[in-house]
Amino acid sequence: MRQTPIIAGVTQVDVASLGRAAKAASSLLARATTDQKNRALIRIAELLELRRDEVLAANRNDVEAARARKVEAYFVDRLTLTAERLTGIAGDARAVAALPDPVGEWFDETRLPNGLRLRKRRVPLGVLGVIYEARPNVTIDIAALAIKSGNAVILRGGSETLNTNRALVGLIHQALAEAGLPEAVIGFIDDPSRERILELLRLHEYVELIIPRGGASLHAFCRENSAITVITGGMGINHLYLDPSAELDKALDIIDNAKTQRPTVCNALGTLVVHREIAARALPRVVARLGAKGVTFRCDPMAMALLGELAPGVLAAGPGDWDIEWLSLVLGLKVVDSLDEGLAFIRAHSLEHSDGILSQDPEAITRFLNEIDSAAVFVNASTRFNDGGQFGLGAEVAVSTQRIHARGPMGLRELTSYKWVCEGDGQVRA
Amino acid sequence: MRQTPIIAGVTQVDVASLGRAAKAASSLLARATTDQKNRALIRIAELLELRRDEVLAANRNDVEAARARKVEAYFVDRLTLTAERLTGIAGDARAVAALPDPVGEWFDETRLPNGLRLRKRRVPLGVLGVIYEARPNVTIDIAALAIKSGNAVILRGGSETLNTNRALVGLIHQALAEAGLPEAVIGFIDDPSRERILELLRLHEYVELIIPRGGASLHAFCRENSAITVITGGMGINHLYLDPSAELDKALDIIDNAKTQRPTVCNALGTLVVHREIAARALPRVVARLGAKGVTFRCDPMAMALLGELAPGVLAAGPGDWDIEWLSLVLGLKVVDSLDEGLAFIRAHSLEHSDGILSQDPEAITRFLNEIDSAAVFVNASTRFNDGGQFGLGAEVAVSTQRIHARGPMGLRELTSYKWVCEGDGQVRA
Repeated sequence: MRQTPIIAGVTQVDVASLGRAAKAASSLLARATTDQKNRALIRIAELLELRRDEVLAANRNDVEAARARKVEAYFVDRLTLTAERLTGIAGDARAVAALPDPVGEWFDETRLPNGLRLRKRRVPLGVLGVIYEARPNVTIDIAALAIKSGNAVILRGGSETLNTNRALVGLIHQALAEAGLPEAVIGFIDDPSRERILELLRLHEYVELIIPRGGASLHAFCRENSAITVITGGMGINHLYLDPSAELDKALDIIDNAKTQRPTVCNALGTLVVHREIAARALPRVVARLGAKGVTFRCDPMAMALLGELAPGVLAAGPGDWDIEWLSLVLGLKVVDSLDEGLAFIRAHSLEHSDGILSQDPEAITRFLNEIDSAAVFVNASTRFNDGGQFGLGAEVAVSTQRIHARGPMGLRELTSYKWVCEGDGQVRA
Repeated sequence: MRQTPIIAGVTQVDVASLGRAAKAASSLLARATTDQKNRALIRIAELLELRRDEVLAANRNDVEAARARKVEAYFVDRLTLTAERLTGIAGDARAVAALPDPVGEWFDETRLPNGLRLRKRRVPLGVLGVIYEARPNVTIDIAALAIKSGNAVILRGGSETLNTNRALVGLIHQALAEAGLPEAVIGFIDDPSRERILELLRLHEYVELIIPRGGASLHAFCRENSAITVITGGMGINHLYLDPSAELDKALDIIDNAKTQRPTVCNALGTLVVHREIAARALPRVVARLGAKGVTFRCDPMAMALLGELAPGVLAAGPGDWDIEWLSLVLGLKVVDSLDEGLAFIRAHSLEHSDGILSQDPEAITRFLNEIDSAAVFVNASTRFNDGGQFGLGAEVAVSTQRIHARGPMGLRELTSYKWVCEGDGQVRA
């Protein structure tokens, strides 16, 4: 059953038309059943396997073009799809199908003194605009989350993955059509020029939310040019504060995990802030354990004095080092005289992504939780948990470091709004 | 106790400095106790009474200047403060003091399989920017809501109330200082030029949310020029759908109330959509009852045919009449052949503020609640209830018709964000 005229998103570069079609498609999708949405998601997973060769062939074109431009190896790696990676991506789509449907959920029910029954009901946002870079798995992940949350989306992927994305979007459109949903639910800007991004940012008539997944310059570009709310995030300069009361063995496990388990991501540790009372005991052990894994250290003068030339990777922190998102095996070490100084240091340098305290002192913990206002604050746990999957949301479109609409991991629920439903039997206002 | 250097907002026109000071003040206010915030609010109420003559004298300057410009009487009326109105405004501030403090509230607690305890904690947004027009009571209302929700705010009132606002902001600053809170919590742009608004809209480094309270052109100006999320609302073309199953007496009470109880506001009724099966019975009664109160009618051809020249105010609807926010005693009358046609009509013309159904048919009610996606939808109740006070929020800064962050009445809770708090005893990510 076809419910709306199909816009062939894959060859469409008129962004306003994509927006209009997405808006119309979103109101049909908003009323789709959970079963219908899940059928589309499961069909996407199946088609990723059935049409694997076609997707891999398209991807080879992108990979070869990237190699010809002599880009760095890590970039080629991120870009490259394999049969195994496709199976993983198909699994992501099936996982989203298995999540509860947020749309239609009732909450915040009250009975007003005049007898009116007042409730809220969760509804989709409408149309999202997502601007992202090389990794082709994002195309399927975002499409799956959008479909399940009842939102249409306009995708603008990186030029380096254009061929891969064309194949993936074609496959998504096939799945949508087979599930009886309009293909325009997933719009695709098939033109890598920056002008098309500008056009997307002006479509406030159709698009409710812009999510740029990229670096600071993409964020700034969107904020400066968008007539639509922009949710940014995905960047973190994260701290752990080591209190004198901490259980040191557990604390070392957490510091190690937060720094080394996956150093290239936004919830990895940036700077360890150490109270001077525990610094002489803790710092040599931190350096020995993490240094053995290839971590190098940027130290303030006090940490430097305590560590001396213990390890070859122990360096004095340069000016500005506390404000760098390392995304690599570099760890800042800062010694403070008091909890107050530690809190002030964290407030001054955090990007309000993920910050934590390692302590057994309830008073210090309470002060940390009161006074550090990051998207996620941790007590005796790794900052690496700030993630939609880890927090039980199932998946995420982004980790927001803004305060408007949603903060931290944004899963299905965070892609919704609500309407007030007020039921009476004749009530009028006095 | 002074916690931060005071910026004399009243004489300050450097908007960036106001923003910087408001940001610094907001982080102190975020940690203020409920008692301290309430003391500031109650002191504002007291000072409105103690310094009444001073405020009224300042207001007389504004009123005389407005009269000299020969503005319309309703405008002078909105602008004018009296001893009685000041007492009412003081009561508003006391009412906000009596509301529960949203800041620090814990919610959404879960225990993850690895033992981590995960909760959310409500935190203030930070700094708000509110741009509004003539009515001076807004200055106190917004300041009171901001203080209670732990947010600093930068106010930009209309040029017509500049003297009154200077007096009111001076009084707010006195109350803040006496409560030990920084005066910069309430910043005031003491310069009515549009350039200052533009400067405010660019302050994304300090300001989290812009709320323009005004007409469509102010909304568009903010959306086009803001690097900050803009929440708009306060405009409604609202519908009631009269189903054949409705209890007609109750329905007439609701229609009357929604249209006439206060026709100049955004939740008043715009168009009555009547199923043809009940139209012949209902329309003459609607016209007789509301016509007696001075309502005139804009009718589609079928309503016109049914009503004939029954009353002098019964006119044929002109092109575009279904898309006008009347804000006056004008009511559109539209007859439809089916619920489907009624739903489609409402979707086409509603501004998604307040729409309702008058019906005793559960199936029709369910379809209406599923398919009409306005900020508030009503069943057998007046649209006039879409209001923060009526919905039990105590007060509101705006009624949002956007879908991002908050929809419908925005009270104290809607001026907050949250942080994730994750507590463990050594958990690391696998």
